[in-house]
Amino acid sequence: MAEFDLIERIRRRVNARDDVVLGIGDDAALLRVPAGRLLVVAADTLNAGVHFPEDTAPADVGWKSLAVNLSDLAAMGAKPAWCALSLSLPGGDAHWVDGFVDGFLELAHAHGVALVGGDTTRGPLSISVTVHGFVTPGRALRRDAARVDDDLWVSGTPGDAAGALAQWREGGTRDAVLRSRLDRPTPRLALGAALADVANACIDVSDGLLADLGHVCRASNVGARVELDRLPASDALRAAYDEAARHALQATGGDDYELCFTAAPDLRDEIERLAREAGTPVARIGVIEAGEGVRAFDATGARWQPDQTGYQHFA
Amino acid sequence: MAEFDLIERIRRRVNARDDVVLGIGDDAALLRVPAGRLLVVAADTLNAGVHFPEDTAPADVGWKSLAVNLSDLAAMGAKPAWCALSLSLPGGDAHWVDGFVDGFLELAHAHGVALVGGDTTRGPLSISVTVHGFVTPGRALRRDAARVDDDLWVSGTPGDAAGALAQWREGGTRDAVLRSRLDRPTPRLALGAALADVANACIDVSDGLLADLGHVCRASNVGARVELDRLPASDALRAAYDEAARHALQATGGDDYELCFTAAPDLRDEIERLAREAGTPVARIGVIEAGEGVRAFDATGARWQPDQTGYQHFA
Repeated sequence: MAEFDLIERIRRRVNARDDVVLGIGDDAALLRVPAGRLLVVAADTLNAGVHFPEDTAPADVGWKSLAVNLSDLAAMGAKPAWCALSLSLPGGDAHWVDGFVDGFLELAHAHGVALVGGDTTRGPLSISVTVHGFVTPGRALRRDAARVDDDLWVSGTPGDAAGALAQWREGGTRDAVLRSRLDRPTPRLALGAALADVANACIDVSDGLLADLGHVCRASNVGARVELDRLPASDALRAAYDEAARHALQATGGDDYELCFTAAPDLRDEIERLAREAGTPVARIGVIEAGEGVRAFDATGARWQPDQTGYQHFA
Repeated sequence: MAEFDLIERIRRRVNARDDVVLGIGDDAALLRVPAGRLLVVAADTLNAGVHFPEDTAPADVGWKSLAVNLSDLAAMGAKPAWCALSLSLPGGDAHWVDGFVDGFLELAHAHGVALVGGDTTRGPLSISVTVHGFVTPGRALRRDAARVDDDLWVSGTPGDAAGALAQWREGGTRDAVLRSRLDRPTPRLALGAALADVANACIDVSDGLLADLGHVCRASNVGARVELDRLPASDALRAAYDEAARHALQATGGDDYELCFTAAPDLRDEIERLAREAGTPVARIGVIEAGEGVRAFDATGARWQPDQTGYQHFA
């Protein structure tokens, strides 16, 4: 399949948006940013065998390659608008490409995101996406805005994606619920946009909860205390792993794309309300402290270390 | 070299711009688009062994990965502002990365472009860049704006990059001037910006002059006639190839990143003047005609076909 056929196949299926003056088909796209908003830009790449198992369904690869990027916009409290897709393919497998585009555009349509450009090249399977969105100046959720005594929150049920990956590495997918959390992460866009008015710092959990929280702490010059028994665990994760393994997966496993955020304690009710409206459960899992570093504790109050568990290879 | 070390090494060397509210280091960049301008976005990927010879110096790979993207902005008549870089690397070769960043940032600094985000991942060597710029509404140079009887113009000396690639395939680089045109293409940003006021259609020559001109003709519902003997050839290309080979390289060879554009005949003097001011030579090489398709002719007036030459494998 020639590049231009592929581009045309994609072009026909793309969202229309009034702010796209010129989309796919020229040297570049022409786009209208609303007056009084900041442009928000994130770019992330997925490589086969590194960021997803080689046996991942093409539609799931398409979904995930956009989802991990939209998750970055969610973590800024931004509203998504457009994306560019650079797709490197070893060969011209029309079936694979159609599946990929199905998954990619399914998520794009769900959030009104228009694919406005990019390119297709020959090479090892790799997907680079750049997403664009808007945020009101001063309202973006930054990593450097955590304050001492902030509550520490997380959305959803962390650890599911890492559980799926652990099962896959042990010989294959056992639990479809967990696997779908690995293959089709949900970018928490509604929650992120709602939090823009109330939260202080925010990050999406891609590398692991403690690792990503560490980025927030370094950027904000604070420390954090996490209570592992407060981490909401899905029924699927509870059924598959005992508490020690679960704690390790939830604390250090990546790929969940949940939001980890901080907010003043007097905003607890407001945050609960906004999360209900956004349809995304949230839980308070700890507190921001003076000092530096992230410390995790188990239900007995004992300090928890990833190397106690044997699961640190999922970090 | 860990991802965060690499990002920090890059971050320290990046251009400052007043319109970058938040650059590298958060989930996304926050950027200010000037009031009354359109945002222009292009994304292109280079894969090792596909888009550049494996023996290309890392600084040249860095330069070229940004240059091919800036060339897309030049072809729209846009002024560049920011870029995002997604770099997939097989290993942690600090020497290679430093060279790559040298070349990338040398070109970025030359045009005041700020690197505002992206990611680094493990995988086969691949570089995906997204560039952002601005253009005044209604002034962008589009592919669909060529008109019958427009003059057809090209910048620079097409065919040099294809000549270098031909030499490389024949056993190695023979001419350093040609090779530098392959490795370090010059994005024609000053010319493109100047042409935004006067030219009709424009495209950058990445796939080959006749092929890229074909995109303009299809988008504009016109045909084109190209006089091959009017194509300016560099001394290096003349020294290395006879006329038949040269015509093939110039007509069908890609990777030059020169601008091919159309303009009304009464603007010839104005275009010559603007090109002199931009420091980029231009030449009239043909005309836009009613009908469809691109026809090329040699100095005798005979119709030229790429398959007469044996050089079509460089197309």
